[in-house]
Amino acid sequence: MKVSIEEAEKFVERLWFRHTDSTVIAVLQDAKTKEVLMVGHMNREAVIRTLTTGYVHFWSLSRKKLWLKGETSGNYQIVEGINVDCDGDALIIFVKSLGPVCHTGNKSCFYRNYTDFMKDVNGKKEL
Amino acid sequence: MKVSIEEAEKFVERLWFRHTDSTVIAVLQDAKTKEVLMVGHMNREAVIRTLTTGYVHFWSLSRKKLWLKGETSGNYQIVEGINVDCDGDALIIFVKSLGPVCHTGNKSCFYRNYTDFMKDVNGKKEL
Repeated sequence: MKVSIEEAEKFVERLWFRHTDSTVIAVLQDAKTKEVLMVGHMNREAVIRTLTTGYVHFWSLSRKKLWLKGETSGNYQIVEGINVDCDGDALIIFVKSLGPVCHTGNKSCFYRNYTDFMKDVNGKKEL
Repeated sequence: MKVSIEEAEKFVERLWFRHTDSTVIAVLQDAKTKEVLMVGHMNREAVIRTLTTGYVHFWSLSRKKLWLKGETSGNYQIVEGINVDCDGDALIIFVKSLGPVCHTGNKSCFYRNYTDFMKDVNGKKEL
């Protein structure tokens, strides 16, 4: 999915960038399996780049910069569709995932269920 | 899914409440259909109440208060499982949904795809 810059600009005008650093929340969901892969933030520019290139871009809250997902790993996430929530402050991005989204090598960042997480000695320090 | 207060307190100790009002992001996903229903925020107390009661609770960013999902509508969301992301600042809550999560009456808050959203004259004003 790819749209023109004019259309992307119309789209962002309708969103509510209410979260940290003027962002919306973006949930990446595998278009085929429906697995939730990760949650990130997008500012206006990240949404526009995502829509105009067809590749997922985020705003990194930690590094305070725009970020093409997969730019170092090659694991790009291709946009197949977008849904918007009722108040316009969150998006689901349906993707074709060209490789694991997680820096741990897991397909999804949500690779631990409750039990695994409670057993995991690294806990929140695993970054 | 329900755990003791002691276990819930251990769980929250391991999370990273980095988002607005010291919250984690919670993605509600239908345990059966895998549909993403909504995105909300949970502070420590909301996570603890969710875990100890088995009913989804949020921290409302707008109203600045704890909120039992379904307390007015009766559409409670029952917790069937929880996954945690790699840096502990986001959760997937797998739920059995006792009714629509959205105030619009839709099963999911993400009821509009890109095309519907662009056509929707109410846009972000629909709250």
